Amino acid sequence: MIRTVDVPALVAEARAGTSRAVGRLISLVDDQHPALPEAMAALAPHTGGAHVVGLTGAPGVGKSTTTNALVRALREQDQRVAVLAVDPSSPFSGGALLGDRIRMNESASDPGVYIRSLASRGHLGGLSVATPQAIRVLDAAGFDTILVETVGVGQSEVEIAGAADTTLVLLAPGMGDGIQAAKAGILEIGDVFVVNKADREGADSTVRDLRHMIQLGEGLTPGGWRRPVVKAAALDGTGVDEVVDAIARHLDWLATSGVLRQRRTARARDEITALVIARLRARMGDLGSGGTLQTLAAQVVDGASDPYAAAEELLTTLGV
Amino acid sequence: MIRTVDVPALVAEARAGTSRAVGRLISLVDDQHPALPEAMAALAPHTGGAHVVGLTGAPGVGKSTTTNALVRALREQDQRVAVLAVDPSSPFSGGALLGDRIRMNESASDPGVYIRSLASRGHLGGLSVATPQAIRVLDAAGFDTILVETVGVGQSEVEIAGAADTTLVLLAPGMGDGIQAAKAGILEIGDVFVVNKADREGADSTVRDLRHMIQLGEGLTPGGWRRPVVKAAALDGTGVDEVVDAIARHLDWLATSGVLRQRRTARARDEITALVIARLRARMGDLGSGGTLQTLAAQVVDGASDPYAAAEELLTTLGV
Repeated sequence: MIRTVDVPALVAEARAGTSRAVGRLISLVDDQHPALPEAMAALAPHTGGAHVVGLTGAPGVGKSTTTNALVRALREQDQRVAVLAVDPSSPFSGGALLGDRIRMNESASDPGVYIRSLASRGHLGGLSVATPQAIRVLDAAGFDTILVETVGVGQSEVEIAGAADTTLVLLAPGMGDGIQAAKAGILEIGDVFVVNKADREGADSTVRDLRHMIQLGEGLTPGGWRRPVVKAAALDGTGVDEVVDAIARHLDWLATSGVLRQRRTARARDEITALVIARLRARMGDLGSGGTLQTLAAQVVDGASDPYAAAEELLTTLGV
Repeated sequence: MIRTVDVPALVAEARAGTSRAVGRLISLVDDQHPALPEAMAALAPHTGGAHVVGLTGAPGVGKSTTTNALVRALREQDQRVAVLAVDPSSPFSGGALLGDRIRMNESASDPGVYIRSLASRGHLGGLSVATPQAIRVLDAAGFDTILVETVGVGQSEVEIAGAADTTLVLLAPGMGDGIQAAKAGILEIGDVFVVNKADREGADSTVRDLRHMIQLGEGLTPGGWRRPVVKAAALDGTGVDEVVDAIARHLDWLATSGVLRQRRTARARDEITALVIARLRARMGDLGSGGTLQTLAAQVVDGASDPYAAAEELLTTLGV
């Protein structure tokens, strides 16, 4: 049974700072609930104020510790902070991960902090559709900074990093020297690099490697922003202020250079495109059960047609 | 400059058994050459005769060794055999991997064997589009068995396994006990399981674990085929005949049960759908540069619209 949702009331409560309402709106995203388009429309006029900061890095570099340290530092500046922990490799949402967070994070009882995990639940488009929607909810609810922390590795991580205004790439000595970072494709996506666990052996050479690799790649990035490498030890707070400062400077640069608007427009394009594709896929699914796609596929199996000819025919049937 | 391609001549030569022509047709796939739709149409009437066997498993389980042993055994039965080595993690194609194969495989000079590697080259849809197309070329060229070996891990591996009639999952003692296999999602995709390196310690317990896990999952799979677990040591040929036998029995079962046609039809549906999506994406790209998508995205950024409303408008512009 589908719950009836009073969208205008929920949006008003979320905007007034009620965590429960924010949570229910993100649950609509999680469920890809039929009321979601209405909610997104109601939230739209209130979006655009938050600074979306992505955190990414291999397992073990200290992402959660860094997130917690950043939350603390941003709270000291009286910012309202939301944390979205995204796990592309897990089909479970809001559960164990969130529990870990509550244990770890003394901010859990602070009303100026909202923490939520989001996981792929196998719905159409998965996290690449759900993550920007959840960000929209938090943005409209008035959080100043939204930290999007991705768990896990791979292509999806890179995609989700694309949802942020500023992307923080975390490395640790010995795990991620420059070459390894380049191979993992994370040099391209980072706006600020943090070498965490700076008390460990090899931290300085990791910083040096990384600066070198970044310099080599400099010609490839849009000019004007020199991507900093910050040494930190998030566990005891070393370097955290420098990280917060680098994030703030990046936002300034984004805003004054006009890159912020460019990035957000590109993201909106991706979001619209993903929704159009999902809609068309659903329509093709209907044609499949209706028989057209099934008939075409059988013709391909029989050698009476080929996939290209069948695709053309399906496009005609779709009326495109 | 785009080469002119004499498609009918190429197809005739490939059907006559000329390796060079087969290679040029697969290069059309690799390049997503404009002549590809014409080639696919010309090949279509000749497809459907090959048994497509996917090989998958974590790095180090001995995939190449097993592939080579299978090629040898199938050649002894006078089959013509093609090997397609698919590497989703590499942007390079036909190069180093192929070189390794030639060194390793004494069959390289045998005209009854064709070996080719295929890699993601960043084109639309990537290997999920290119792999079934390369299989079509080899199928129409008259190979009896096409071994599709995937290198690398993850979701793409599962997708590519979907291109096969029969999927062989390889494990090695100590690396892949049943629970690990279940976590990796490979229990669902296997039709035949091979525990390779059977001379190693722990082989028997891996086989036992695996049989147990398969039994637990039995209720979830379409009835009639009891998925065998074969112990092998491909390096010295132990168990290879049993593997070949299991593959042949699976093909018999597929054919008599009607599942072969079902699977191939489902695959053709996926292939058609992927091409339709690629076509629509290209068209949306045109709209993007034409301004419609860009204008809608800017409205979303300004909060004047939301992604759902924008998607609806774009669908209207697309004429859907």
